[in-house]
Amino acid sequence: MTPSSPVEPFDAVEVIAAKRDRLRLSEEQIDWVVDAYTRGVVAEEQMSALAMAIYLNGMDRAETARWTDAMIRSGERMDFSALGRPTADKHSTGGVGDKITLPLAPLVASFGVAVPQLSGRGLGHTGGTLDKLESVPGWRAQMSSEELMAALGPQGPGAVICAAGAGLAPADKKLYALRDTTATVSCVPLIASSIMSKKIAEGTGALVLDVKVGSGAFMTDLDQARTLARTMVDLGTDAGVRTRALLTDMSTPLGRTAGNALEVRESLEVLSGAGPRDVVELTVALAAEMLDAAGRPVDAPELQAALADGRAMDVWRAMLRAQGGDPDAPLPVAPETETLTAVGDGVLTTLDARAVGVAAWRLGAGRARKEDEVQAVAGVEMHAKPGDTVRAGQPLLTLHTATPERFERARQALEGAITVSDPGSPQARAAVTRREAGVVLDRLV
Amino acid sequence: MTPSSPVEPFDAVEVIAAKRDRLRLSEEQIDWVVDAYTRGVVAEEQMSALAMAIYLNGMDRAETARWTDAMIRSGERMDFSALGRPTADKHSTGGVGDKITLPLAPLVASFGVAVPQLSGRGLGHTGGTLDKLESVPGWRAQMSSEELMAALGPQGPGAVICAAGAGLAPADKKLYALRDTTATVSCVPLIASSIMSKKIAEGTGALVLDVKVGSGAFMTDLDQARTLARTMVDLGTDAGVRTRALLTDMSTPLGRTAGNALEVRESLEVLSGAGPRDVVELTVALAAEMLDAAGRPVDAPELQAALADGRAMDVWRAMLRAQGGDPDAPLPVAPETETLTAVGDGVLTTLDARAVGVAAWRLGAGRARKEDEVQAVAGVEMHAKPGDTVRAGQPLLTLHTATPERFERARQALEGAITVSDPGSPQARAAVTRREAGVVLDRLV
Repeated sequence: MTPSSPVEPFDAVEVIAAKRDRLRLSEEQIDWVVDAYTRGVVAEEQMSALAMAIYLNGMDRAETARWTDAMIRSGERMDFSALGRPTADKHSTGGVGDKITLPLAPLVASFGVAVPQLSGRGLGHTGGTLDKLESVPGWRAQMSSEELMAALGPQGPGAVICAAGAGLAPADKKLYALRDTTATVSCVPLIASSIMSKKIAEGTGALVLDVKVGSGAFMTDLDQARTLARTMVDLGTDAGVRTRALLTDMSTPLGRTAGNALEVRESLEVLSGAGPRDVVELTVALAAEMLDAAGRPVDAPELQAALADGRAMDVWRAMLRAQGGDPDAPLPVAPETETLTAVGDGVLTTLDARAVGVAAWRLGAGRARKEDEVQAVAGVEMHAKPGDTVRAGQPLLTLHTATPERFERARQALEGAITVSDPGSPQARAAVTRREAGVVLDRLV
Repeated sequence: MTPSSPVEPFDAVEVIAAKRDRLRLSEEQIDWVVDAYTRGVVAEEQMSALAMAIYLNGMDRAETARWTDAMIRSGERMDFSALGRPTADKHSTGGVGDKITLPLAPLVASFGVAVPQLSGRGLGHTGGTLDKLESVPGWRAQMSSEELMAALGPQGPGAVICAAGAGLAPADKKLYALRDTTATVSCVPLIASSIMSKKIAEGTGALVLDVKVGSGAFMTDLDQARTLARTMVDLGTDAGVRTRALLTDMSTPLGRTAGNALEVRESLEVLSGAGPRDVVELTVALAAEMLDAAGRPVDAPELQAALADGRAMDVWRAMLRAQGGDPDAPLPVAPETETLTAVGDGVLTTLDARAVGVAAWRLGAGRARKEDEVQAVAGVEMHAKPGDTVRAGQPLLTLHTATPERFERARQALEGAITVSDPGSPQARAAVTRREAGVVLDRLV
């Protein structure tokens, strides 16, 4: 009943009440509430009540699209049309050992598609791409718009992995911080609009989403992950971005390392034509999608060739140099390690992604608060993966850190995370079958 | 995954997530979250997300009881046991023209039961008891604990209507202000715990709840009102307060006035043995419940006699004097009035409570913001009530204000609020039947 301010067309309480009562929010209501929140007219406690109402009562496709658009319009929008060549970007919903961006961006750029990979830092048990690259001596994440355009142009390496500017979707930045403290993170329309507002504002022409499913991911359920992927593909498509998604397995970490310098080292193996099978599989699958969506289809054997013959490595080296990094400098190595061994013979059937992520985090690879520093050297090295046969006493994991007092809590995180089963057991057969099936579970266009 | 503070046993995000996911909150979680919110450790935006989760997912009887108890324990608790006589209190969920507390408190006190009626101010379209009494020259709402005990003791009038101290249920005060701005007001467990935490902390032995149903009330639906009444009666009973509830009609205003001095004048009519039939009916019904719950049953004819022979009026006059009021001073009168007349002959079938409340509010009887001043003289006088026969040109309503520029918006509030029907119509017969049935719809013990 309280008259709203004469200069505001809506009252926040009415907008919250509408979603609370399961009504559709109008385009005008969405535009206003996102803008007024960015301006500080809608208070944090009002947006948090609205976020919880959205969490519990949902938003439909049109509402989610408008919400995403309102967040894009809260800030600036990048434009790569002056480059004169196609652009493609990849986004992962986050997983343990997910270093795919590192070999992927140079691989795609080696085929003439520019890759403006604007990335973030890690919080919690999944690492951040920028944190990983900062283990390369001299490398810096910040780039000006001019540096970015130059690096993506014909004289540059054609790929850039750098920090997203603060001007992109500021409404999302504010809302993301709020959701983190109010238990409103794991909600499909809010996750989808958060990711897609930033990606659409970044101005990429093609986008491939890597939606993770499993214990180490946001989404532990395949149907929920498929709903998230579908929502994001629709948002991108509606906004004129050629968008695809792969649903990929995150029940066990990707590759054999989780940690910053450890993952850069593994990426170098991939860029040398070697590296763990699952990392190579996913790098090639995502590169094929990005290139196809960008209108430059390349088949898998050709992509593998570009990894084997050094074309992708050449882009990687140029990319690091363009951001101050020295590709020939040795990567830092942990002064302290501790190795966990197998207690019996059999087939490794579980190596839980979340537990490994938490262990790496506790060793120093991740941060508990935004302002925390990460250790370049910290992390977990895996000597066996699910489906592998192991023998008692064989090393399974090596824990790396600069601060050995962290070993104990890391080991605690791993309790119950490793299972070795009888080779004839159904669990063992399932683990082998799963490994053979690969990491890509489904594809959405 | 973020470790919670070492000194706090719970993390707010976990508590919010539990209710979001439809889990029961434990006693320890409720105690902690209410206390930590009062201390400022749980932030406003966190409590608002929790309130929305409670709004949408509910709290069961045990959770609501614990939540109420936690709010009581956030502040001080009054104790009237030293009075040596029974105490009874009444709470109304708020309606238009609801001046019942004014004749009721002295009537009950005239039978030897002390009435510590701690009241509030109005916000929005329903008036506040303290605002009404402040139209009595000299009267003041603030009383110290010593003044309160003296007024309720054997030498005092035995009844007090005064402002509740800030020390009672401070968690509720903070939460109520938050709910008002976050669309989480109209939720049974939150309404019930808010009302009952204050009433239980006030230390009354018996409590009668007047739960309003209809367009002028919080609850427009009888079943929802019954649920609220049942929840509150259970909370009171579980806390050792002898609690009852009446469900009463609020589709049309109570009595013939809505406004501050106007309602005091009407209360004086009731205290003189006259006054509108619905106001007398409800005053007597509530007094009978209060006295019975306090262990001093008195029948209706005896209560009516106490109104007619001046016993209740004597307490009223003593009560006003104990708080600085002059019972013989003339009440203020509006300098400006405007009368609305019937446009046709027939039976008045609708006089919408909410519309009359909003009109009185816009005339100056209520406030839009806590800091607004109210006009003692403003309000609406009703010359006919639903079920009455009216003739074209006959006065229906008189609008009162000190600021005539308010007439237009008050008239706008009344558009469509008045219906006159053919005397033979079903609507007319229903209005007459409803009037004859009285205002009490149901009773819960």
